[in-house]
Amino acid sequence: MSEPRWLTETAFANMRLSFEVTRVLREDQTPQQRIDLIENPLFGKVLMLDGATQVTSADEFIYHEMMAHVPILAHGAARDVLIIGGGDGGLAEEVLKHPAITRVVQVEIDAQVVEFAREHFAEFNASAFTDPRLHIEIADGAEFAATTDQRFDVILIDSTDPIGPGAVLFTKAFYTSLRRCLRPGGIVVTQNGIPFVQRDEFMDAMRNLAQVFQITECYVLAMPSYAGGHMALGWGSVDRDPREPDVDVLTQRSSALATRYYTPEVHRAAFALPRYILDARIAAIAIDR
Amino acid sequence: MSEPRWLTETAFANMRLSFEVTRVLREDQTPQQRIDLIENPLFGKVLMLDGATQVTSADEFIYHEMMAHVPILAHGAARDVLIIGGGDGGLAEEVLKHPAITRVVQVEIDAQVVEFAREHFAEFNASAFTDPRLHIEIADGAEFAATTDQRFDVILIDSTDPIGPGAVLFTKAFYTSLRRCLRPGGIVVTQNGIPFVQRDEFMDAMRNLAQVFQITECYVLAMPSYAGGHMALGWGSVDRDPREPDVDVLTQRSSALATRYYTPEVHRAAFALPRYILDARIAAIAIDR
Repeated sequence: MSEPRWLTETAFANMRLSFEVTRVLREDQTPQQRIDLIENPLFGKVLMLDGATQVTSADEFIYHEMMAHVPILAHGAARDVLIIGGGDGGLAEEVLKHPAITRVVQVEIDAQVVEFAREHFAEFNASAFTDPRLHIEIADGAEFAATTDQRFDVILIDSTDPIGPGAVLFTKAFYTSLRRCLRPGGIVVTQNGIPFVQRDEFMDAMRNLAQVFQITECYVLAMPSYAGGHMALGWGSVDRDPREPDVDVLTQRSSALATRYYTPEVHRAAFALPRYILDARIAAIAIDR
Repeated sequence: MSEPRWLTETAFANMRLSFEVTRVLREDQTPQQRIDLIENPLFGKVLMLDGATQVTSADEFIYHEMMAHVPILAHGAARDVLIIGGGDGGLAEEVLKHPAITRVVQVEIDAQVVEFAREHFAEFNASAFTDPRLHIEIADGAEFAATTDQRFDVILIDSTDPIGPGAVLFTKAFYTSLRRCLRPGGIVVTQNGIPFVQRDEFMDAMRNLAQVFQITECYVLAMPSYAGGHMALGWGSVDRDPREPDVDVLTQRSSALATRYYTPEVHRAAFALPRYILDARIAAIAIDR
């Protein structure tokens, strides 16, 4: 038997995760980026861009369920949802599981990302990409948020990390644009990285969020395909407290929802932050206010 | 600048975590095992045995706090604690933070592990190894549990994975021995691996626990130095329900306790299992009962 081949992350200092490769589906160096798409026995399809894991077919449900269902079920009457980023379609799939959602606008900067996801990740995004409630706009998310006349009940920022072209999606200016697009009672949820590994970036994003929204919080989940412990999602709202509603109401609202990670108990539990994350959040908000 | 050197896990199929090496503290191939101890900018000291990460100085507190404080604070009146395994001393350190604990018996099979930890991980275990309440016995944990006349309020199984010599610490026979050593109101907590990666082993251990103890549960945490998502700890008791006491009582009991991960809210939240873990646990217990 030959030695197994491994695909290794190269985007991070200090630690790297490698995935065993049972099949190479695509290896490309385009003018824009390095693309690796492989198959792994545990994670299914694994997509890396420029050496950073983007999505795997076996665990994408965790991040996407927690980003979609927590604000939608907390809101209780959301109809219009805005997704910025989220090109792989996994987040739209979860949002569209809610029959009360009548319209999802997804703003993705790169048309090729959507085409690539349609071709390679149909197992989780086919239902979303054929749903007439989904409207995909190929545009710059920050510009869209700054200029659109549309208003939304829930806004989800499914971004890459706060370095390079994605950095604008973690700024005070961007969050101010999002506040402008929120209906009363609306909620913004943002990808906030892995606090153990990216403590400064986490604190910056939490501080910026707190300077724009009256109510901010963060909640956590654990992704198998990322090392570094809990991933954090940020919560921003003018008027909606994340400590509501209680488990009984969430249970009623989610009774018809099929999930593999989310439960009403997990929803409430996700806001109980490990002390090292809680302390970083408190320290971030204390500065510059 | 030269390329950084990396220390890579080799013990697992499908995925591997690598740590950047800024200093090699020890590289040894003894007749028993391969030992690698290095320094990493994010994790501090990283110890691998036979290519499997055992402990890092920057995140050991997470696992050790959750294994120690959850059962001790849930119990509320524990005096005698038994630790099986836990050679690095980090678990004993957390247990001994509770002034009401009068005696800790730690049974470790390998004297060299304790010596090694004393030498290299003094930053977190020095206070434990000099505490007169700690009694270290070099013995086989399974044999000790089967034969000792001592009785304990809390028993903690800080084992390696359920393969090789550690496998006996996940069996029905071993759990039966532990039940024998528990005082009324006592609690057993066991290391139960990473359900996303080790689903079968997790289910086997949960099934065995449920065949011995009237009350079983599991709770979760996220370790930065392990990939694969949540790690699970098992709970076994004849008579103590893990859903008690509430946050107010836990807050009172932990008011003088300095922690970096544990909070009373995190304690309660840890029992809210992601649905894929909850489903595996329910399926495991349904078989063979």
